[in-house]
Amino acid sequence: ETSYNHDQEVKNNVKNDQVKKDEVVVIPDMEYIGQFAGTYLIWQNEEGLYLLDQHAAAERVRYERYLSKWLKKDLETNELLLPLKIEISNDLLIRLIDHETEFLDFGVDLEIKDNFVLVKKIPNWFPEGYEEIYIESMIMSLLENDFTSKESLIDDLAKLLACKHSLKANHYISSLEANQLLSDLRKCKRPYTCPHGRPIIVDINMNTIEHWFNRVI
Amino acid sequence: ETSYNHDQEVKNNVKNDQVKKDEVVVIPDMEYIGQFAGTYLIWQNEEGLYLLDQHAAAERVRYERYLSKWLKKDLETNELLLPLKIEISNDLLIRLIDHETEFLDFGVDLEIKDNFVLVKKIPNWFPEGYEEIYIESMIMSLLENDFTSKESLIDDLAKLLACKHSLKANHYISSLEANQLLSDLRKCKRPYTCPHGRPIIVDINMNTIEHWFNRVI
Repeated sequence: ETSYNHDQEVKNNVKNDQVKKDEVVVIPDMEYIGQFAGTYLIWQNEEGLYLLDQHAAAERVRYERYLSKWLKKDLETNELLLPLKIEISNDLLIRLIDHETEFLDFGVDLEIKDNFVLVKKIPNWFPEGYEEIYIESMIMSLLENDFTSKESLIDDLAKLLACKHSLKANHYISSLEANQLLSDLRKCKRPYTCPHGRPIIVDINMNTIEHWFNRVI
Repeated sequence: ETSYNHDQEVKNNVKNDQVKKDEVVVIPDMEYIGQFAGTYLIWQNEEGLYLLDQHAAAERVRYERYLSKWLKKDLETNELLLPLKIEISNDLLIRLIDHETEFLDFGVDLEIKDNFVLVKKIPNWFPEGYEEIYIESMIMSLLENDFTSKESLIDDLAKLLACKHSLKANHYISSLEANQLLSDLRKCKRPYTCPHGRPIIVDINMNTIEHWFNRVI
């Protein structure tokens, strides 16, 4: 047991992402240092230190990718060689019957059976291994939202599916993966907040750090 | 050029090292992540992130080492095979004459010549390559302080020499050296501040970081 009493208070106001529509927000050049708590990637440049929430970043990247795929005129889909069988409750099946064809608008061709759903076609950008959970999520979300405005549905779905992917707990990221993630994030329109509005990158200015160490003259 | 306007304010109060005499201050176990700005070593454990000022840490380690060496009853010294010739101004030489023998108390045997000083014995823990600057610093300091209380002189000298070593600007440290420095620091009596009172380690609590990323529920 330690009597580690080096107390300190760190206060930080991360301003909400207040990016105007036409404003270009560019992530500065920075060099990867390492991973902290299996969750935050640490970077540096001459301005200071940067923490990047790897899950929030991955969510932003997937969200923007899904959104653009769904908003495309020609949905890119894949016929499944083996149709996917998804079991859902009778209660949901009954509610689903009225909307069977509407899933086509979202790149999903499904057929309602007695006590399951048979999925025959899905967007070809659904990541491998996630097809089932993505479709289940879509069904739940579309039923919940009662098939209102397609645009807002797509936005909700893109958020939801981007998020489904991020459920995994802390995991190690190599320096290569870290740089790939940053490069993907760089291409995003709003690289500083996740789809739910949480910050992706927080920077600690060099002045702040010099201040902590009483190095400011 | 970037329009990087992700603004943020980070405030931090690093409490001055208020360690009571008998209190044991232990550096927690932590894992090395990497080096930032050629100056700060970044560490982590479950409590959060730690920044360590590598120069301040090295200074603290050397200061405590020098202090204990000088306070030893038997000063460990080395006869120099080739006496060291140190040129100093006539003005200083004249002032030095009265104190020639007093340097013996600090492990330095010197002989004043016409226009230089000949050093024949030095503490054996003077680091290689730094003998000359260490002795010059000692001469200047002892003359300036007029050979008052030996105890406080030793403290001043230990600080001064520990500091002489740290003048080098940013330099890369390997993970091995980082861990060695931390291990040396662990053995110090006051591992949290450099001899001049500046902080050596600043921690950023996990709660603070979760707060930055709006991850707190």
